[in-house]
Amino acid sequence: MTIQSTPKIPTDRSRLRRAHERGSYDAESLYAVLDANPICTVSYVIDGRPFATPTIQWREGNHVYWHGSAASRMLKKAQGNEVCLTVSIIDGYVLARSAYHHSVNFRSAMLFGKTFKVEDPDEKEARLRAFVDGLFPGRWDMLRPPSVQEMKATTVLGMEIDEGAAKVRGGQPVDEDEDYALPIWAGVVPMRTEFLPPEPDPRNLPGVEMPGHVGDFRYG
Amino acid sequence: MTIQSTPKIPTDRSRLRRAHERGSYDAESLYAVLDANPICTVSYVIDGRPFATPTIQWREGNHVYWHGSAASRMLKKAQGNEVCLTVSIIDGYVLARSAYHHSVNFRSAMLFGKTFKVEDPDEKEARLRAFVDGLFPGRWDMLRPPSVQEMKATTVLGMEIDEGAAKVRGGQPVDEDEDYALPIWAGVVPMRTEFLPPEPDPRNLPGVEMPGHVGDFRYG
Repeated sequence: MTIQSTPKIPTDRSRLRRAHERGSYDAESLYAVLDANPICTVSYVIDGRPFATPTIQWREGNHVYWHGSAASRMLKKAQGNEVCLTVSIIDGYVLARSAYHHSVNFRSAMLFGKTFKVEDPDEKEARLRAFVDGLFPGRWDMLRPPSVQEMKATTVLGMEIDEGAAKVRGGQPVDEDEDYALPIWAGVVPMRTEFLPPEPDPRNLPGVEMPGHVGDFRYG
Repeated sequence: MTIQSTPKIPTDRSRLRRAHERGSYDAESLYAVLDANPICTVSYVIDGRPFATPTIQWREGNHVYWHGSAASRMLKKAQGNEVCLTVSIIDGYVLARSAYHHSVNFRSAMLFGKTFKVEDPDEKEARLRAFVDGLFPGRWDMLRPPSVQEMKATTVLGMEIDEGAAKVRGGQPVDEDEDYALPIWAGVVPMRTEFLPPEPDPRNLPGVEMPGHVGDFRYG
């Protein structure tokens, strides 16, 4: 692993570079983090106050999507408004020779943008199919098809990937020069997401076999 | 695992029950999630727009803390203002017989409150000691002590655990009654955080042994 320190993210939003200004490399950096971990946090402002929802995102091209209950007041409030979507993956804890230089190895993405609601029923179904099949290839066509009611009860929100930043930290601690002479153990405790053997629903019908997309399910 | 559905979190903040109104059981639910995963996202409002920072939190009694660079404009902006702090742990993916009933097993905590900055130098050092030793018991006293400069360069923010909600979902999918007759594989893919063997810094002095708190490092 190598350290790829990226600049601090400015809070002056006019200083945030847009993805298309940064060249394909930077978009690719954001894509890599989004694709490596579906779990995200969507933050927004309701009546001037901060709100955040952990949810699952999926990416299609230069858009990111998430979904939820159409009855969710939060999802309604997010619709058409600005959000900040973050994904973070912790790859390890970095133990240094001073408290100050302790750190974590991580990959993170921070996106800003105005959301839109996917209104067209066919497009909404296409997005949800991409979501399910993105995690579990081929699963959508194995399922009982969604009812009109279920589709109405589901809201899909999307956002263009346009403004944001990816950050990556890897490798060993970076200590003060003189601290390397100290007899203090330093190093990294790596970590990752572990997927355990699938647990079939006891109510599965006899003879129903586990599809390959279940046993192969992995990300990170 | 059992399903403990908690009510939807209302966006009308006056409807959010406060921890002290909910009895110790609810505070304990929040504590359990905070203690199970240091990684959190702190969301706040800057100039009316949503902002979020993935960071590490630690809990002491009924307070939660996080830290960062004193030069961070985001940390300065958060200071004294309202934030929403979320922790989420994904325990598994839940595959149902319809797309609609797919879900995740998770534990999450959402806290709201105004932050305060820990100003007193002794208190700040005590908080940072609790942070380091909370993750790696006994490590603080093994380290090169922090310099005055390092302490000045570090900001510690805190928040009372007062308003929020914990949510937990576990177990198998809950499908429509008639869908249980379908020959579709349903079940759970459990997941957890895996800690890999520590990687010592190649610049460790010869003979420096790995402390127990490194090999024993675990959470989840």
